[in-house]
Amino acid sequence: MPEDIEAMTRFEVPDVADLPEDLQERIEEETERAGFTPNVFLALGYRPKQARAFIEYHDALLEETALEREEIEMLIVTVSGVNDCLYCIVAHGALCRIYADDPHLAEQLAANHRTANVNDAHRAMLDFAVKLTEEPERIADEDLQRLRDHGFSQEAIWDIGNVVSFYNLSNRMAHLADMRPNEEFYTLGR
Amino acid sequence: MPEDIEAMTRFEVPDVADLPEDLQERIEEETERAGFTPNVFLALGYRPKQARAFIEYHDALLEETALEREEIEMLIVTVSGVNDCLYCIVAHGALCRIYADDPHLAEQLAANHRTANVNDAHRAMLDFAVKLTEEPERIADEDLQRLRDHGFSQEAIWDIGNVVSFYNLSNRMAHLADMRPNEEFYTLGR
Amino acid sequence: MPEDIEAMTRFEVPDVADLPEDLQERIEEETERAGFTPNVFLALGYRPKQARAFIEYHDALLEETALEREEIEMLIVTVSGVNDCLYCIVAHGALCRIYADDPHLAEQLAANHRTANVNDAHRAMLDFAVKLTEEPERIADEDLQRLRDHGFSQEAIWDIGNVVSFYNLSNRMAHLADMRPNEEFYTLGR
Amino acid sequence: MPEDIEAMTRFEVPDVADLPEDLQERIEEETERAGFTPNVFLALGYRPKQARAFIEYHDALLEETALEREEIEMLIVTVSGVNDCLYCIVAHGALCRIYADDPHLAEQLAANHRTANVNDAHRAMLDFAVKLTEEPERIADEDLQRLRDHGFSQEAIWDIGNVVSFYNLSNRMAHLADMRPNEEFYTLGR
Amino acid sequence: MPEDIEAMTRFEVPDVADLPEDLQERIEEETERAGFTPNVFLALGYRPKQARAFIEYHDALLEETALEREEIEMLIVTVSGVNDCLYCIVAHGALCRIYADDPHLAEQLAANHRTANVNDAHRAMLDFAVKLTEEPERIADEDLQRLRDHGFSQEAIWDIGNVVSFYNLSNRMAHLADMRPNEEFYTLGR
Amino acid sequence: MPEDIEAMTRFEVPDVADLPEDLQERIEEETERAGFTPNVFLALGYRPKQARAFIEYHDALLEETALEREEIEMLIVTVSGVNDCLYCIVAHGALCRIYADDPHLAEQLAANHRTANVNDAHRAMLDFAVKLTEEPERIADEDLQRLRDHGFSQEAIWDIGNVVSFYNLSNRMAHLADMRPNEEFYTLGR
Repeated sequence: MPEDIEAMTRFEVPDVADLPEDLQERIEEETERAGFTPNVFLALGYRPKQARAFIEYHDALLEETALEREEIEMLIVTVSGVNDCLYCIVAHGALCRIYADDPHLAEQLAANHRTANVNDAHRAMLDFAVKLTEEPERIADEDLQRLRDHGFSQEAIWDIGNVVSFYNLSNRMAHLADMRPNEEFYTLGR
Repeated sequence: MPEDIEAMTRFEVPDVADLPEDLQERIEEETERAGFTPNVFLALGYRPKQARAFIEYHDALLEETALEREEIEMLIVTVSGVNDCLYCIVAHGALCRIYADDPHLAEQLAANHRTANVNDAHRAMLDFAVKLTEEPERIADEDLQRLRDHGFSQEAIWDIGNVVSFYNLSNRMAHLADMRPNEEFYTLGR
Repeated sequence: MPEDIEAMTRFEVPDVADLPEDLQERIEEETERAGFTPNVFLALGYRPKQARAFIEYHDALLEETALEREEIEMLIVTVSGVNDCLYCIVAHGALCRIYADDPHLAEQLAANHRTANVNDAHRAMLDFAVKLTEEPERIADEDLQRLRDHGFSQEAIWDIGNVVSFYNLSNRMAHLADMRPNEEFYTLGR
Repeated sequence: MPEDIEAMTRFEVPDVADLPEDLQERIEEETERAGFTPNVFLALGYRPKQARAFIEYHDALLEETALEREEIEMLIVTVSGVNDCLYCIVAHGALCRIYADDPHLAEQLAANHRTANVNDAHRAMLDFAVKLTEEPERIADEDLQRLRDHGFSQEAIWDIGNVVSFYNLSNRMAHLADMRPNEEFYTLGR
Repeated sequence: MPEDIEAMTRFEVPDVADLPEDLQERIEEETERAGFTPNVFLALGYRPKQARAFIEYHDALLEETALEREEIEMLIVTVSGVNDCLYCIVAHGALCRIYADDPHLAEQLAANHRTANVNDAHRAMLDFAVKLTEEPERIADEDLQRLRDHGFSQEAIWDIGNVVSFYNLSNRMAHLADMRPNEEFYTLGR
Repeated sequence: MPEDIEAMTRFEVPDVADLPEDLQERIEEETERAGFTPNVFLALGYRPKQARAFIEYHDALLEETALEREEIEMLIVTVSGVNDCLYCIVAHGALCRIYADDPHLAEQLAANHRTANVNDAHRAMLDFAVKLTEEPERIADEDLQRLRDHGFSQEAIWDIGNVVSFYNLSNRMAHLADMRPNEEFYTLGR
């Protein structure tokens, strides 16, 4: 049995029983699906309305998208690697292994997307993600054109951009609170 | 009458009439309140579900908060200045002028929060905002302690962090789409 | 009536009556032209010979030039934006509004020249200015060639370079002394 | 006899005989004093009024100063090292060797002022110079206080700041024009 | 059976049978110990004398040391994380898991040593490693003093410095050649 | 007679008589060849096995190479300039002057290889060296191709890479120990 890790160290972790009912239900669902409660849900409960908005944003990016789930997880792990975010590297590293059905891709992307085993279109997608993360003020028409040249639709480009933007938010919240990944995430999907 | 500026240059601006009803209503409300339709609403309509989540996140940050509205706008303008985001500097610059009741604060914050006319607590708050924007991976316990020393509650610190994180998202979406500020924002509140 | 702002906070502001006569005359001229005494003149008086040299350099760049005044002010605001210099952004922002006859250009340039409404030649000019500011050691023949391709003469390129260089000096003096922009500059030319 | 090196490679070097009389006289003086004509004078002649202003600024910094000449040259070499400016490192390296009466100090400062043989006050002075060069937007009251703690007067601090600022200008002009140091400078003062 | 991965992509991988006898023997030893031939040995064989020197340096750091093997691997993974070096993160990540007897430490260190589960002395050691990697020119007496304050001997500090320096070499060789980690390393020690 | 300079300031310099015999012999050889004992040998003796490995690596790079000795010294001075390493700039600056038979090249390279008098192939070689030093994680196939286009063999590219990597190690050891260059190095080869 994994040792008990606090969901975050800088703010008091709320008691699930004290959360609004809809958040409790969502946490229950996640716990059933994963077999454990991902710490991000416990941590975000600190501010319930903000938590609800966070979850809805996350869900919208998965529901209204021209991207494959595998691509979304590749983007998240790459962005989180650039931002040195332990929680997101480990938690979404697990999802990346599962959705890409590849036990090593997440570690490659977290280290350096330039030396990961990805095809040319995904390399372009990840180059774009890193630029939007590191120097968003320099994103230019040419950067979007390169994605179109690799077959990405306008909608897909928007979706790439919004996933990258949202994890620039998430990585910062995880750093703020010092969110700790559940032990289970380290081994899922290997 | 201000010239007609496209809401964004890199994606087709959707027709309001084609948007889901709830977004149409929200846009109507905003238009009535401001006297014009802020371009961000038109731009985000490109992906309606994502737009809805964006708006709800934005609203949650205003509703569930230990911060004054003036402080929220100061944070946004400062972060947007660091990220060189024209749309957010101009649009939230207007809100900053209005809520802080100060015609010059926004320009000072967008230039350099270190030379802005702010009190010590707000200086500490803005230093934190810039660090969480520029090097989130280095946020440490001492950084939060400095905010507590200036009287910020734990809830206020979380709220500062989430506003900063959300505008790190927003700035990137504005850069991605090349969102253009409405002419009206430049002069509001002067 | 605007509140009385000290010209700088880190050095004692000299009394105009104690300055050498030629500086007093120049200050009088400037005051008549502008309707107020720009704080930079008061601040620089701290070291009169150095002040005289500063003013002569400034004047030479306006008199011996292949550039339009509007272009000079665009360069200054862009460089000062990169260097986060409040005094120069606000004071030359006013001049930029006036000479370019555009109420919004200065705010666009201070935020990010890449998203400003400028033509292609000016975009190339401003890209060059930012490179000479941020990484002067990498200026290469190709950078000058790009300016020539956009129609700039050799003299114009030299003048661009010297304006950029001089405001890299000015921005640093303003940061050193913590020079404060006059209230009037914020609203001039809107 | 040293080989004939062009004063700069990116602009046509003017013929001394075509320059205004006062500049010709100044060049003659310099040539007599040094035994050769420093290339910067030939290069700057490209724009005579700007050249005159440059020379007057340079002279004012030497005449109206609370600093020793040795300190001024130490500042110049350090700043030019940070800015990777060959012309100024070599030309002022020679002056640094001469005025500090130390054959090795210039090479130490150009490499890394932190490992140079300087006393504590000069170390503080050079730390300040590097900060004002690299991140002028972060200069704070504490930085000036540290100089005062090492015995620098307010006037000396201003003078340090203006020397640093002026060589941030000069380094950029040398990079722009690709100014080439005279052979003689490499060996002077060893 | 793991798929066959080339040891590197940018240079021809030498045939082991063509290598000098002592290198062949060493490779045999490593293969027996690990159960597979670590790709770095195959890659380095491209230049046998240089390979021999590399191996001897590596061995000297393990033999003549005041550090625990666990600490050496922690240093390597942290430095390789900063340098984004896939080969070293994966290969030494495996060794870190084994020697520290901790299945998660390597992933934590590769992501961000600041959020890894390490004691205060090791945090200081890793802070030093990152500074020596990222800004070696700023290493100061105070940095060594902090290590002494945490109980590190002078010899241990030297050894920390040399491990960090050597992996700044190794990471660059791996990037140069695009060395690929063996599949086995990804799972060892979990 | 040059003043007596300690080989390093942060660790006790070992007594040569206490070193293993082979190191003593090597030091004797070096002293005879140079006319003085280069301080690096005294400093490295602090950890004899590590010293032996360092020397063997150094020797292997000179013996097994497709590069001219002049090119190796150009690489070392350029890399050491980027890393601000006084010891290596001064010691290898002397060797660069001697092997390149050029009294000024070392100072040019230490300042900025982009303004040094080198041919196009060497410019490409040095650009590569700086990229492998500053951003090794971005080295790409195109970077190696550019070297091949300038006539460098695969072996030469490997050797360039290993020299650059080894001096990224050496520079860090010199910074760690604060190694001080012998006075003699400053003037050798001028």
